[in-house]
Amino acid sequence: MPVMPDAAIEISAFSWVPPFARGQVRDLRVRWALEEAGLPYRVRLLSAMEARPADYFREQPWGQVPIYNEGDIHLFESGAILIHIGEKDDRLLPRDASGRARAIAWMIAALNSVDPDVGALTDIDTFDPDAEWARLRRPAVVERLAMRLSRLADSLGEKDWLEGRFTIGDLMMIATLRGVTDAALLEAHPNLAAYVARGEARPAFQRALVAQFADFVAEPA
Amino acid sequence: MPVMPDAAIEISAFSWVPPFARGQVRDLRVRWALEEAGLPYRVRLLSAMEARPADYFREQPWGQVPIYNEGDIHLFESGAILIHIGEKDDRLLPRDASGRARAIAWMIAALNSVDPDVGALTDIDTFDPDAEWARLRRPAVVERLAMRLSRLADSLGEKDWLEGRFTIGDLMMIATLRGVTDAALLEAHPNLAAYVARGEARPAFQRALVAQFADFVAEPA
Repeated sequence: MPVMPDAAIEISAFSWVPPFARGQVRDLRVRWALEEAGLPYRVRLLSAMEARPADYFREQPWGQVPIYNEGDIHLFESGAILIHIGEKDDRLLPRDASGRARAIAWMIAALNSVDPDVGALTDIDTFDPDAEWARLRRPAVVERLAMRLSRLADSLGEKDWLEGRFTIGDLMMIATLRGVTDAALLEAHPNLAAYVARGEARPAFQRALVAQFADFVAEPA
Repeated sequence: MPVMPDAAIEISAFSWVPPFARGQVRDLRVRWALEEAGLPYRVRLLSAMEARPADYFREQPWGQVPIYNEGDIHLFESGAILIHIGEKDDRLLPRDASGRARAIAWMIAALNSVDPDVGALTDIDTFDPDAEWARLRRPAVVERLAMRLSRLADSLGEKDWLEGRFTIGDLMMIATLRGVTDAALLEAHPNLAAYVARGEARPAFQRALVAQFADFVAEPA
């Protein structure tokens, strides 16, 4: 169990979020990577409902979670944290130059090519479902995301993981696909749906999910 | 002048794009990094107006530019390419663990925290300015981007670069900020506007921009 109060690695997380956000907050992907690598970590909990402490913005420019501290390493952005953790363990990031570069490429693809399209649909379905702009805009957003997922499904093909073996590229891609608010878009591609399920079935993912939920108190402070 | 027909590094770019996209296509940031590092490269030109060759999707899952080939390294996603180039030259990516991690964090911040908000405004201002959904939605998109830029301006402060010295984090952040379609949003933060101008004044940026424009033919094929 990698959550340990005296661990060298510290991350931040929220002590409460609304039910729809549970299992989606981005400390999950960092917990998942740490579980894959068997690295113990401690958690600094922040209230999502209160203003962030002023000095937290010096650690995380946007006031979000997670941050990652380890000795003189002070990181923000889950993608940067995954690269840092990956460099500690070749089960997450291959050591050979080609395999390493491909894993990073897929991780960046998740962050910059897939996540913006997923986020555009979340803006509609989760945050503004009844708005007139959302009703007018949704078909084009769905079409763009569907095209993206179709390309991704082609790249995955019949492989278990995007480059054949699990890497931080898969970890980030699966974490991103878990945010797709319209399940039919994923189910249209059985290989993608199976890929997400394959990631969620990993023991390290399950432990990370339990750990995130365990840190949520019953009611907001 | 790093564009050389027999260079070991190959990137892809478009042979024509509409005027609004010139200086924005993402091969620019890769050319910029290669110019900073003094690495020669050759360019494979694609038509932006015709369907991509079917086998190009095996190199670039989304059919976009650029790809990057160098021996057995086959990359897509400009962020992944910048990390790869950065690892060749500590003028782009510091060698010490802390400095390296911070540079990557800012690069990922540009891609996943700033670019999605910039892109949401581009979707409105460039691609659908007269739509009813865009009229209804624009104020919220502007507010979100303005908040993001305010946080970024706080982080930059009076420094020349985000971590004091130029890195791939600045290169990607400046490339991203150049895409903000409403100049007033940047001008509201004189330090950010000066930061972008400082990046654009670098000789390597200027050479990259000239090289991108030189590859555009007068009319689409």
